[in-house]
Amino acid sequence: MENKPLILLTNDDGFEAKGINVLLEMLLPLADVVMMAPDSGRSGAACSITSSVPVSFYQVREVEGCVVYKCTGSPVDCVKLALEQVVPRRPDMVVSGINHGDNASVSVVYSGTMGAVLEGCMKGIPSVGFSAYSIRQDFDFTPFIPCIRGIVKRVLDEGLPNGVCLNVNIPDTTVAQGVKVCRMANGNWSAEWVCAASPKCKNTYWLTGEFTNMEPDSENTDFWALDHGFVSVVPTHVDLTAHWAMEELKDLEQL
Amino acid sequence: MENKPLILLTNDDGFEAKGINVLLEMLLPLADVVMMAPDSGRSGAACSITSSVPVSFYQVREVEGCVVYKCTGSPVDCVKLALEQVVPRRPDMVVSGINHGDNASVSVVYSGTMGAVLEGCMKGIPSVGFSAYSIRQDFDFTPFIPCIRGIVKRVLDEGLPNGVCLNVNIPDTTVAQGVKVCRMANGNWSAEWVCAASPKCKNTYWLTGEFTNMEPDSENTDFWALDHGFVSVVPTHVDLTAHWAMEELKDLEQL
Repeated sequence: MENKPLILLTNDDGFEAKGINVLLEMLLPLADVVMMAPDSGRSGAACSITSSVPVSFYQVREVEGCVVYKCTGSPVDCVKLALEQVVPRRPDMVVSGINHGDNASVSVVYSGTMGAVLEGCMKGIPSVGFSAYSIRQDFDFTPFIPCIRGIVKRVLDEGLPNGVCLNVNIPDTTVAQGVKVCRMANGNWSAEWVCAASPKCKNTYWLTGEFTNMEPDSENTDFWALDHGFVSVVPTHVDLTAHWAMEELKDLEQL
Repeated sequence: MENKPLILLTNDDGFEAKGINVLLEMLLPLADVVMMAPDSGRSGAACSITSSVPVSFYQVREVEGCVVYKCTGSPVDCVKLALEQVVPRRPDMVVSGINHGDNASVSVVYSGTMGAVLEGCMKGIPSVGFSAYSIRQDFDFTPFIPCIRGIVKRVLDEGLPNGVCLNVNIPDTTVAQGVKVCRMANGNWSAEWVCAASPKCKNTYWLTGEFTNMEPDSENTDFWALDHGFVSVVPTHVDLTAHWAMEELKDLEQL
């Protein structure tokens, strides 16, 4: 048992969400698991960190090969805190999800699920986020067990390229066409606010929005894969530098 | 007056912070300004968005060429809300800062200042974030007025390459050596938690940390520029795809 790999598991929907608990069951045959997840939903937490108040964690349960904690912080806080204060040894992987809702295209930027994955990646640990292109609570993850386990096993066995993590999205179907390695699609959100004027403030709004895929016909993108029934896998990194634009902007050095 | 450009100004330190108010004064000779900033500090907010509660905004003051609002949401919420519900016309630029503390290297990932800039960029508006490599409240921004105005004027006049925004960091000096266009340095944070055990929970911690620049001798990085007294300008984009790793991971399609 001591030779089993160790996985740090988290999400942004909170420790009680269906997605993370389904994922935990899928992982347990492959590895020991430390789960440290937010104590409530943190959708849209992105890579946010908590510095204005202290962060606490509490053990929820412990069974053979698995300890579960809830944490008052963000998904990134969960990863940082678990790695420094909780895990018995350096994990072989960080896994996040399964998110209820896709994190394809630009949604990766807002995603707490992927925030945790980027954090694991920055700590030098192979990290993978799983999200489902559906927010139905009765979404059936069962058909995807072989694929999810396959990806995790591949990463446990062979690792990932240096500085790269994976953003995996599961299509809204019962029979996947297979896996596509792709890039994030260009897309944007619009019509993002619905008025919720209150007696105290007329300028009060709920965040919502409509997503538009700007390149629905590009076969090498994540949304094309999802729209055609494939599991999308986007190799993702934290290098935000637009290297290709550096030369064009050199004139700024004349200022 | 109607031909003046329009700038949407925000930050993550809140509408009362010194940095944003100094920046506002620098911008007013160049443009009309709508300022929509968080009602309190949101350091470390990254690209987070608020969907669990409604978001409100309130007008704080209005003078010729300038309206100031405070908002209960994150920096990204401020940009989304101002663009859809507040500005009288599409802004010519989104400007964020001046942040108290640098946002160089991987700190860009956690930065609310840069979260707002990435949001402006995703909306197709030329966007620039300014941060100071100092958290001293008496930091003197005066020597940097010509440089900051120069960058803003350059972007107002000529725009930015498609999909690119700028992450500008100001060195902790009184006389800058000039401007360097560079890439984000590889670096990491460690020793990130200090115990703050409370009577209610011994597992309570404050987030802190030490940053290590992993490549202090790389002259084309932002931290090299800052350490040598230059203003660093990193062309930044929201494409997180590690394009170079796609081929290497094609075997995942066999799953």
